Amino acid sequence: MRNFAGTPGTVTALILRLLQCLFAAASIASMATTKSFFNFTAFSYLIASMGLQVIWSFGLAFLDACALAKKKVLHNPGLLSLFVVGDWVTATLSLAAASSSAGITVLYFNDLGGCGFGQECQKYQLAVALAFMSWITIGISSLIMFWTLAAG
Amino acid sequence: MRNFAGTPGTVTALILRLLQCLFAAASIASMATTKSFFNFTAFSYLIASMGLQVIWSFGLAFLDACALAKKKVLHNPGLLSLFVVGDWVTATLSLAAASSSAGITVLYFNDLGGCGFGQECQKYQLAVALAFMSWITIGISSLIMFWTLAAG
Repeated sequence: MRNFAGTPGTVTALILRLLQCLFAAASIASMATTKSFFNFTAFSYLIASMGLQVIWSFGLAFLDACALAKKKVLHNPGLLSLFVVGDWVTATLSLAAASSSAGITVLYFNDLGGCGFGQECQKYQLAVALAFMSWITIGISSLIMFWTLAAG
Repeated sequence: MRNFAGTPGTVTALILRLLQCLFAAASIASMATTKSFFNFTAFSYLIASMGLQVIWSFGLAFLDACALAKKKVLHNPGLLSLFVVGDWVTATLSLAAASSSAGITVLYFNDLGGCGFGQECQKYQLAVALAFMSWITIGISSLIMFWTLAAG
């Protein structure tokens, strides 16, 4: 099993996990503080998906931090397979949630000639942008994880 | 380089590529025959993304068919890296396009209490469903490709 930046139990992996948590939590905060998100299925789905992302990334960040503190290597193939599957599932759900919300945001801002929800519009856009940033970081993590597993 | 079902130049790979082409082309046909798709950014993006998918998958299906006919093995690492990157890019674009169109379809059918475009509504739904099926087949292809490259 090769050991490179981003594999479980390294500082890069921990930073990526913390960024995922941060972006997903900020996306939830931005979306959940609007008054009308529950009228849109896609926006509710975004909150659910980002919630799952926060739980998953926080759990793995905790594991990475433990592994770093104890200087233990997390390269058990069984554990790694679980991480890979979990990473791919959350990454796919995050991208789907971010895209469907982005579809609706673009529909309101562009196609219907302006968003009529006042200040909430910026919050919708911010939540979608943060969700995409969370997806980019989880995407990097899951590529590294898959590579580690396949090259092991 | 291990040789298993789905690696470039096998019958499984060829079938997967042809299915991707078929689903993507059917999705374009269903969406492009509606009269109002160009009013929606997400629907236009779906057509563009599925168009790219058809070109990419057809090209690779052609390569697979040539490799099968000449019984040549397509396991050049440079070529494989190119396939992996192309597969991941098209898979991500397809998922994003399918999700953003699905977001708008769900918005019209569920959240706004019914779709007012008559017969075109079924076509929108069909196009989205076909785009998701195309994404599933390209997803399988790209996982196999990435695994082949990493395990090589």
